Amino acid sequence: MTELINDIYLRAAISGPVERTPVWMMRQAGRYLPEYRAVREQAGDFMSLCKNAELACEVTIQPLERYPLDAAILFSDILTIPDAMGLGLSFKQGEGPCFANPLRTSSDIKNLPIPDPADKLSYVMNAVSIIRRELKGRVPLIGFSGSPWTLATYMVEGSSSKEYRHVKGMMFSDPQSLHLLLDKLADSIIAYLNAQVASGAQALMIFDTWGGVLTPRDYKEFSLNYMQKIIDGLTRQADGRKVPVTLFTKNGGQWLDIMAETGADCLGVDWTMDLCDARASVGDKVALQGNMDPTILYGSPERIREEVATILKSFGHGNGHVFNLGHGIHQFVDPENAGVFINAVKDLSPAYHL
Amino acid sequence: MTELINDIYLRAAISGPVERTPVWMMRQAGRYLPEYRAVREQAGDFMSLCKNAELACEVTIQPLERYPLDAAILFSDILTIPDAMGLGLSFKQGEGPCFANPLRTSSDIKNLPIPDPADKLSYVMNAVSIIRRELKGRVPLIGFSGSPWTLATYMVEGSSSKEYRHVKGMMFSDPQSLHLLLDKLADSIIAYLNAQVASGAQALMIFDTWGGVLTPRDYKEFSLNYMQKIIDGLTRQADGRKVPVTLFTKNGGQWLDIMAETGADCLGVDWTMDLCDARASVGDKVALQGNMDPTILYGSPERIREEVATILKSFGHGNGHVFNLGHGIHQFVDPENAGVFINAVKDLSPAYHL
Repeated sequence: MTELINDIYLRAAISGPVERTPVWMMRQAGRYLPEYRAVREQAGDFMSLCKNAELACEVTIQPLERYPLDAAILFSDILTIPDAMGLGLSFKQGEGPCFANPLRTSSDIKNLPIPDPADKLSYVMNAVSIIRRELKGRVPLIGFSGSPWTLATYMVEGSSSKEYRHVKGMMFSDPQSLHLLLDKLADSIIAYLNAQVASGAQALMIFDTWGGVLTPRDYKEFSLNYMQKIIDGLTRQADGRKVPVTLFTKNGGQWLDIMAETGADCLGVDWTMDLCDARASVGDKVALQGNMDPTILYGSPERIREEVATILKSFGHGNGHVFNLGHGIHQFVDPENAGVFINAVKDLSPAYHL
Repeated sequence: MTELINDIYLRAAISGPVERTPVWMMRQAGRYLPEYRAVREQAGDFMSLCKNAELACEVTIQPLERYPLDAAILFSDILTIPDAMGLGLSFKQGEGPCFANPLRTSSDIKNLPIPDPADKLSYVMNAVSIIRRELKGRVPLIGFSGSPWTLATYMVEGSSSKEYRHVKGMMFSDPQSLHLLLDKLADSIIAYLNAQVASGAQALMIFDTWGGVLTPRDYKEFSLNYMQKIIDGLTRQADGRKVPVTLFTKNGGQWLDIMAETGADCLGVDWTMDLCDARASVGDKVALQGNMDPTILYGSPERIREEVATILKSFGHGNGHVFNLGHGIHQFVDPENAGVFINAVKDLSPAYHL
């Protein structure tokens, strides 16, 4: 294995000592970059890009050529597992993901296979291997999956949802079926993430994009429990060091304390909470990742630097902070402004690690 | 003035003594009711229904004929003020509100008039007067408005938004213009709500649907500050008793403590927080309204009663609770299930007021 040149992200994500705050951006390989749009056009639709390991590698590395980022994240989609289960994923222009065969009955769920990562998800593992090789040890590679609850929302609704009529309808009228689905998803995700680590991923992240639409009781029962199961089943060591696991529940700031008990190393925080409060609620149990509002990148360079300074100050001195946006970077952001953000973290953070 | 027969909502909303927990539903006059759909069809589009005072009165009272609700709420839309300012409101099928003339520049905002409620909003005041008369004192009538920040998001984006690119872009690149807009909206809303009280509204509610997409700092500066200005400018007495004011910031549970300092009588709480925690954070300063997940109404009658029991227990004994959903009732809910919910509150809540 090539030696890792910049390992500051891996150290920070396990609350280890660092000389400055590392930084990466969710969706850093994405539409705001003209070089991404060019490759995307070449590939055709979004899933064709995900399924072409060479092109997925190319777009994964693109942002590292522009910015001094401290981590790469696999270019893929959270819905690869439901696609491999046979739900028929497509992306309609401007409408987000759509499944040809959404799950509506308990027999739909009982018949659902647990996909072998070496079979229908081999394109993801190929991409991970190629990206790891092409990174040449510059920075670590983060693998990822959606959370069981988040995947279930898309699989039951059939597409993006504002009201969660079908999946919450199932939760309240047939919770056993929903639990069976979530359990199958947890098993599938354990196999999927462990295969990513075996293929070269050096850190993992679980995106619970829709956990925040639940009551605290339902969050614990239907989302957190299954993320706990995943964490318990993950390979936690690779290349002789720990594989940090980050959990991110969007709009889940009020649950950071219970998320910190799962054994995750790091928790993602969105911008609706001050990092000082987030830190107070988790203590030294986990590192925190976040939490700049992505829309700040529509502001002036001065405003962006000011916000970075505010967030660094809010977290305060000491280890355990990975700087990031509180959600993915928007497609209409000027790439120059992303550079201003990343450089501001590098310039301003050493003062908090003296 | 006709004597008010059932005033339990007015008592509970100011944390006064009650013998059971009052209940109403946000969007209780709405598409889930076949009798509403019939009137809506007769009226044509949604704004034509809002602007026809007799029909607006009819749909406001419809849910009271079906259910033993403790309050009526004016049938209208939160976007009447921007419409009266000349932005050209329409509702496209399945797409939500749309403004023909969104605000994008500081001169757009400087030129914006503050509408006289007696002029372009007289249809709302007519509806309030007629509804108050037709209620014949059965229950109090709640008037309402959107919050300045929430109205500004629609006015600057031009329609519903997931990313708030334009309005947050303005926030971070030209905050003075956004402040001018919010200030004009606050002045407009004060005049609008005071005119509703003068026309017969007995309680008021401010819907801050999108305050929860802000950082804590931006929430205070761009949303809460202007709701504070409104509260300071409102008529707080009518018919010799207090006009309770309820503030509701969706996804704003983490800010209930500072919302409780505004002088509001009652705070709306969505379902992402337990009422026991909400109550702990506000103490005796304000009453709380909420907070059942509206999707529970897709569950069985037993599941609905169980959730009502859980929420009553979470709030606990004592005054200061107005039962409601944590957001508007969904259009696909079976009206029978709404009845199960309302009756469960009536059956189960007296035990908490002994």
